[in-house]
Amino acid sequence: MNIDERFMAEALKEAREAASEKEIPIGAVIVSRGRVIGRGHNMTERLNDPTAHAEMIALTAATSALGGKYLEDCCLYVTVEPCPMCAAALNWAHISRIVYAAPDPKRGYSLFSPSLLHPKTEVSICESMTEECGRLVSDFFKSVR
Amino acid sequence: MNIDERFMAEALKEAREAASEKEIPIGAVIVSRGRVIGRGHNMTERLNDPTAHAEMIALTAATSALGGKYLEDCCLYVTVEPCPMCAAALNWAHISRIVYAAPDPKRGYSLFSPSLLHPKTEVSICESMTEECGRLVSDFFKSVR
Repeated sequence: MNIDERFMAEALKEAREAASEKEIPIGAVIVSRGRVIGRGHNMTERLNDPTAHAEMIALTAATSALGGKYLEDCCLYVTVEPCPMCAAALNWAHISRIVYAAPDPKRGYSLFSPSLLHPKTEVSICESMTEECGRLVSDFFKSVR
Repeated sequence: MNIDERFMAEALKEAREAASEKEIPIGAVIVSRGRVIGRGHNMTERLNDPTAHAEMIALTAATSALGGKYLEDCCLYVTVEPCPMCAAALNWAHISRIVYAAPDPKRGYSLFSPSLLHPKTEVSICESMTEECGRLVSDFFKSVR
């Protein structure tokens, strides 16, 4: 297991937590200098708040941990490609790197142009975990519909 | 003063509150059935949180007031054109209508395609207050730079 897979496994733990709470199972962690400084999973139902996505919760936790509003030198790991809201939030935070596992061809940020991300943000896909992270979401929707 | 101007004046009060706190002076209110159910102003500095925009704070307050995660039949009044993060958040909330006063040709949501807003969201510009709401922001940046 490489470093990206290790942190994506942490994000996946968060996603499973969401599943156990009947939330859309997406999870995220933010890492600075090899340490998780923020984590979150989708809580839109519990909080009655459509902005309570995994990434937003992790981002607010991470900026709070660092005591500043920027996440330069930080990497976000998220089980599913961020939506436009989260991508634009990560842009405001100047995050250095984003790693996601499952693409979201219907609602992902990469559908939009110009890019919603900061020009300096590097993006990687953790392909070894794409299937597992994507299946968690598709199984969830099969179970509720 | 028509109804839109009356509520935009409430958003402008919020923006002035932000100015007095040395925050970028943008304010927002969300109205349901003629009543303000959520209000907010930019608090990114005070909260050390790049997502603490006026619209996000007003949105979370409004969904909390209504006890549901949707803002159908609600109108957001905001002094400046929303950024992509806020537009996408308002999309998730299914807001019915957005009224803004000052366009933001550099960072506004309308620069992006496809549209970041929900297809059913109606957008109006409150032109009688464009100058006043825009000037508050440009004066702020002149004073800090």
